[in-house]
Amino acid sequence: MTAPAPRRRGRPSRSAEDGGPGARQRIMEAAREQFAERGYDKTSVRGIAKAAGVDPALVHHYFGTKDELFAAAVEVSFEPALVVPAVLGGPLDGIGERLARYFIGVWENPTTRAPLLAIIRSALTHEAAAKVLRGFVLRRLLERVAADLQVPDPRFRAELAASHMIGIAILRYVIQVEPLASADPEQIVAQVAPTLQRYLTES
Amino acid sequence: MTAPAPRRRGRPSRSAEDGGPGARQRIMEAAREQFAERGYDKTSVRGIAKAAGVDPALVHHYFGTKDELFAAAVEVSFEPALVVPAVLGGPLDGIGERLARYFIGVWENPTTRAPLLAIIRSALTHEAAAKVLRGFVLRRLLERVAADLQVPDPRFRAELAASHMIGIAILRYVIQVEPLASADPEQIVAQVAPTLQRYLTES
Repeated sequence: MTAPAPRRRGRPSRSAEDGGPGARQRIMEAAREQFAERGYDKTSVRGIAKAAGVDPALVHHYFGTKDELFAAAVEVSFEPALVVPAVLGGPLDGIGERLARYFIGVWENPTTRAPLLAIIRSALTHEAAAKVLRGFVLRRLLERVAADLQVPDPRFRAELAASHMIGIAILRYVIQVEPLASADPEQIVAQVAPTLQRYLTES
Repeated sequence: MTAPAPRRRGRPSRSAEDGGPGARQRIMEAAREQFAERGYDKTSVRGIAKAAGVDPALVHHYFGTKDELFAAAVEVSFEPALVVPAVLGGPLDGIGERLARYFIGVWENPTTRAPLLAIIRSALTHEAAAKVLRGFVLRRLLERVAADLQVPDPRFRAELAASHMIGIAILRYVIQVEPLASADPEQIVAQVAPTLQRYLTES
C-alpha cells in the first residue's frame, strides 16, 4: 500500500485526497482508541479528527454522525467476534467448548479486551451507544450465530449464551470478583462449555 | 424501628433538630434515589443532604465518606438479594429454578430494578464503586450462597451462576436485545434453571 500522508498538516486540502490515502484508516484507529479510552460520552468527532490529523468535516464525510462512527468502531472491534461462524463451522457436539474457549481468548487478550469493555461500558450508560450495540448485536452477530442452530428459538438461545459470556466478562474483568478474576481460563471453559452446548444444540 | 447507633464518632447530634428522629432513614432514602438516578459519579454528599433536609455534616456523621454511604446504599438495595439463603433453604434439587425465578422477579419489579441497575452501571464506570460492589458481593452475598453448597469451589460456582444472571439482566433490561427483552419470564426460567442447578449442585 502507499505510505500514509504526514499525520498532521494543518487543514487538509479540498481535493479528493483530503487527508491522504490513509486518512480513513487513521480516523478509524483514532475513533477506536478514543471510544475505548474515554467512552462514548467523552469522545468527540473533533477530538478524533485532531488525533487523526484531519479536519472534522472529513470524519463526517467518511463516517457520518458520531453515532455512525461509534457503530463503525464497534463493528471493527467486534470483527474478531464475527469469526464465530468459523467456531460454529466445526462439529456441533463441540460447539460449546469451542465458543467458550474462543470467547475467553478474546477477553484474555488486552488488545481485544479494551475496546469491548469500552463498548459495554458506553452501552450501559448511554442510550445512543446501547442502540448501536443492540442494532449491531442483533443484526450482525446473533443472527449469524442463530442461523446455524437447529433448536427452537435459535436467537433466544444465542442470546442466553451471549448473556452468560458477557456476565463472566463483567465479573471477571471489570468488577474483578475473586476467585473468578484469577481462575484459570481452562477452569472457566470446563464449566461454561456444557452450558453453551445445551443452549445452542439441545431442544 | 429504632435508629441504630451512629457509625462514627464525629460530631454528635446535639438536638432533635439535627435532622430529627427520621433523619438517618431520610438520608438513606435520598442516597438510594440519587445514586440510582445519577450514578456514583454525579451524586454528592451535599446533594443527598439537601434532599434529606439535613446538614452534610450529619450525612458524614451517620455514614462516613461518600464511598461508605454508597456501600450502605448498595447493601440496602441488595437486601432483597440476601433473601437468597431462604431460596437456598429448600430442597437442593429445585434450587436452580427457585433462584432463577427469584432473580427474574427482582429484576421484573421496577422498584428493585432501578437501584440494581444504578449499582451495576456505577461499578462498570468507576473503580470506587466497583470496589464497593466487589467487597459487598464477595463478603456478604456470594459467601452466604457458597456456604450452603456442596460442590468443589463453591464460591467459583456461585459466581458463575451470578455472572449468568447479571448478563441476562444487562441484555434484557439495559441493552434490550430482542427476543430476550420481550421473552416471557417463565421461558427464561425454564432455560436458565438447569444451568444454575448444574453450577450449584453438580460436582
